[in-house]
Amino acid sequence: MTEYTISDYLLDVIKALGADEILGVPGDYNLQFLDHITHRDDMKWVGNANELNASYMADGYAREKGFATFVTTFGVGELSAINGLAGSVAEHVPVLEIVGAPTNDVQNAGKLVHHTFGDSNFDRFIQAHEALGIKTTVLDAKHAIDQIDETLAYIHTTKQPAYLVLPSDLVNALVNPALQGGIANRIAAKQEQNVDQSVAAISAALADSKSPVIVVGHEVDRFSLGQAVKDFSLKNNIPVVDLGLGKGAVDESFANFVGTYNGTISDEEINQFVSGADTVLVLGAKLTDSVTGGFTQEFDDSQVINLFAAAGSIYGQSLPADYDFVATLQQLASTDLNLKLANVQAPAGDITALKATDKALTQAFYDRALQEFITADKTLVAEQGTSFFGLASQNLASGAKFFGQPLWGSIGYAFPATIGAQLANPSRRAVLSTGEGSLQLTIQDFGLALKERLTPVLFIIENTGYTVERVIHGMDEPYNDVPKYRYNKIAEAFGGQADQYDFIEVSTEQELMDAMQKADQESDKMVIIQANMAMKDAPAQLIETGIRFEAQNH
Amino acid sequence: MTEYTISDYLLDVIKALGADEILGVPGDYNLQFLDHITHRDDMKWVGNANELNASYMADGYAREKGFATFVTTFGVGELSAINGLAGSVAEHVPVLEIVGAPTNDVQNAGKLVHHTFGDSNFDRFIQAHEALGIKTTVLDAKHAIDQIDETLAYIHTTKQPAYLVLPSDLVNALVNPALQGGIANRIAAKQEQNVDQSVAAISAALADSKSPVIVVGHEVDRFSLGQAVKDFSLKNNIPVVDLGLGKGAVDESFANFVGTYNGTISDEEINQFVSGADTVLVLGAKLTDSVTGGFTQEFDDSQVINLFAAAGSIYGQSLPADYDFVATLQQLASTDLNLKLANVQAPAGDITALKATDKALTQAFYDRALQEFITADKTLVAEQGTSFFGLASQNLASGAKFFGQPLWGSIGYAFPATIGAQLANPSRRAVLSTGEGSLQLTIQDFGLALKERLTPVLFIIENTGYTVERVIHGMDEPYNDVPKYRYNKIAEAFGGQADQYDFIEVSTEQELMDAMQKADQESDKMVIIQANMAMKDAPAQLIETGIRFEAQNH
Repeated sequence: MTEYTISDYLLDVIKALGADEILGVPGDYNLQFLDHITHRDDMKWVGNANELNASYMADGYAREKGFATFVTTFGVGELSAINGLAGSVAEHVPVLEIVGAPTNDVQNAGKLVHHTFGDSNFDRFIQAHEALGIKTTVLDAKHAIDQIDETLAYIHTTKQPAYLVLPSDLVNALVNPALQGGIANRIAAKQEQNVDQSVAAISAALADSKSPVIVVGHEVDRFSLGQAVKDFSLKNNIPVVDLGLGKGAVDESFANFVGTYNGTISDEEINQFVSGADTVLVLGAKLTDSVTGGFTQEFDDSQVINLFAAAGSIYGQSLPADYDFVATLQQLASTDLNLKLANVQAPAGDITALKATDKALTQAFYDRALQEFITADKTLVAEQGTSFFGLASQNLASGAKFFGQPLWGSIGYAFPATIGAQLANPSRRAVLSTGEGSLQLTIQDFGLALKERLTPVLFIIENTGYTVERVIHGMDEPYNDVPKYRYNKIAEAFGGQADQYDFIEVSTEQELMDAMQKADQESDKMVIIQANMAMKDAPAQLIETGIRFEAQNH
Repeated sequence: MTEYTISDYLLDVIKALGADEILGVPGDYNLQFLDHITHRDDMKWVGNANELNASYMADGYAREKGFATFVTTFGVGELSAINGLAGSVAEHVPVLEIVGAPTNDVQNAGKLVHHTFGDSNFDRFIQAHEALGIKTTVLDAKHAIDQIDETLAYIHTTKQPAYLVLPSDLVNALVNPALQGGIANRIAAKQEQNVDQSVAAISAALADSKSPVIVVGHEVDRFSLGQAVKDFSLKNNIPVVDLGLGKGAVDESFANFVGTYNGTISDEEINQFVSGADTVLVLGAKLTDSVTGGFTQEFDDSQVINLFAAAGSIYGQSLPADYDFVATLQQLASTDLNLKLANVQAPAGDITALKATDKALTQAFYDRALQEFITADKTLVAEQGTSFFGLASQNLASGAKFFGQPLWGSIGYAFPATIGAQLANPSRRAVLSTGEGSLQLTIQDFGLALKERLTPVLFIIENTGYTVERVIHGMDEPYNDVPKYRYNKIAEAFGGQADQYDFIEVSTEQELMDAMQKADQESDKMVIIQANMAMKDAPAQLIETGIRFEAQNH
């Protein structure tokens, strides 16, 4: 394969954007494209057990590394992945899906081929993706290079996912090899943008503020603006909170960081910074139910400066036309507003040392213990159940990362996302916290994780079913039960070799601490820790949130 | 809960249509609806490990029992199931999905709730389903009863799936309890329809035929018209073939049944009946690539009388306005065309007794052995891999059933469909034939199958990866490898008790025969049979099909 094809060009651009592994599932409309991956020395095909898992794993990979790509087949494959890709839209994660499709000849002739409805309509799947707000492109022979450039530039600049259909007759279509040399320039960072008017407007709006607060959301993470926010805060003595959706986007250990805000169900000393603020700078955030204690934030448009990627506003009015999210935050980083505010007195938090006993493990102890376990070189992925609600309110160590999915909230996401993060960056330890109810949705990629010899730490909370749902409704209803798996057998059943994993079951505080210590020692193994807890033991913030969800549902 | 609500009415209609178990996954927008299921004595909630599995399992349940219902939550749940529901559209299977949604108040206020994109647009998911040709309905307070009636009547009369959104504020809305008494009438069979003109037109078109043939497809199964086709064939001495898509829709053991047709790659003595026919009666069928050897049928519109549910035509011309698929076939059943044809001389097939040796098991031996194993009281579900291509060409015993998915072709379908069939009808043994590549996609509902103490026989062909894809492209490529699971540990890992399942690994012909005998004896257990075969051993029809797919993809 010395000829240079559309597939090679596409993979060169993907490689330049940072994806070294390509995820997905083979299918007979994408097999020829996969040849171009497996025949490269600088890329690796990592095949998932199913497409939904591929999409979740790509999301985790992209959060860790800034970009990910996965491949599916037409119709059946892409539809199995659509929930995951839609989640990447909702939570703003830069993922590319490539869909191998029937040839243009087959499509134009309306043939009744498999993986369709047998109705000669080949546009249905694209339309379904468009309905979900996903950017879609179908490559055609004449414009393929421009279409690839445009799609990848979209992902690179907006940090949003895109969906690219590759008809199989184009896979080996030849293109000019000289194109390869120009890729670096075409994906270079965009030029400096003058945002003086926007920065001036924001400065003016803040000029009389006596008690501003910064609320940080997920887009600050996706555009790598955490340092800019920190600098801006330090220069102007403005306290900072983050939301669960965007947790860790800013260093949670720096002097002005107050805590993770969750509406009125936050710790009172955190909530005071927000409820007492005269101006709220909402940066790259969405104030969704799961991260505001069910819409309990007590501020409104008249107090809010809202800067996010798609637009910005000051007290409900649009910003000047030169507004650009990234450039504005970068310029604010070095802007002295001359507010003359006192130094921020951030709450000290719970500084009592964690003391383990032989008492039965509780969710509260577990959350504190995990906080200590997640050091600078670890990435925590918290499932949207008791894990997320309990862990999002713990402060993160500097350098540590936290991935959750509080807006999309698709249970089963966290396990594939964890192994995606681990694959993306072997120098960090990926740590999963999930429940046995959620894990069952996507458990089969234990096979992949073991085959690839990935070494995450996997905490499985065994609390007899969907505790997060029990708290919301149906505490003792059978629909919140799940089959009882034997987690000590899972790695073996999915093909693990005895020397490549460890399984530890813990029921007491001390056992948990010991298991964590062992997991740190066994950094070359996958370590699975089954943490037994009582069925009805749930984090305080989840209980509060559950009450509000249930009220809202009547 | 003595009051009669919209939920109770909906469940009463579902029950009247034949679903006694409701499948699905709980989520916080459907929990209150689930109460109405668990609080009934005449229905059972059977919770799946994930939504895709629920949709596949519902498809298998509906094929066995005529109707199935599953429940998901808004956004994430329904999107995870969309591939399965779309497959039910493609393959014409009557399944109802109920989606629990946020209240109308939340939707109308455009609140940024979880399981959405946080963009205040609550219509995206419905639009995605509509793009796929799925009938959608969002219940509203004023018209809910009529909407439920209309949706269920659509499923009942068209045998097609539908999607029903239940906003959570309607779950407990009260309706007139007297409605309950009228359900039986409202879903009664439709009135006799006069189709004399259509039958006369068909009779006239066939009047001069010297060598007609009947090609039977899936709609004949869905509308229970197998007996009508058989009667029509016997009365007029017309030979019958069926397609892989619709296999077993007509009794494969009756005198005029020739075999399962698959274009020019069929056995020559089967193909002759079709290639030599002057008139081809295509009944409820779609001539898709996977069931015509890649479009190799050698007849065209000028020879075809095409009767299917949506429309009918004779030699390319529409049938008279009185045409109705069911009524026309039922009337044809007793119509003597007076063709004076000789008795059909159906091929005898391979009548040599199967003789097992100690030689290594081959796909060819396996296919013949399974043919003998699938007796009248069994339902075979064949995965769209080597299983389907090898087993579809074996004749079925009278009374036996065969489920496949050759048009939609979503790998992973067969296992949940098998346990769906087993749940739907405990008096028949459901038998799965799948490969280890396909099984991994949906394996987690071993947990459910064991919890529910279901007793299918599960053949897992261990042939080191996706052999069906190897045959099409990339015989030795790593993307066709899959992680090697330990199937002897799977039932234990997913929670099975030692006395409720058996695991047997077979590598020779004799071992397979012994395992089948044991499986028949152990009718009260789930029996898992791992059948080891060579990586490149594939059924002849698959190899032929693969060559044609690959040619088409260039």
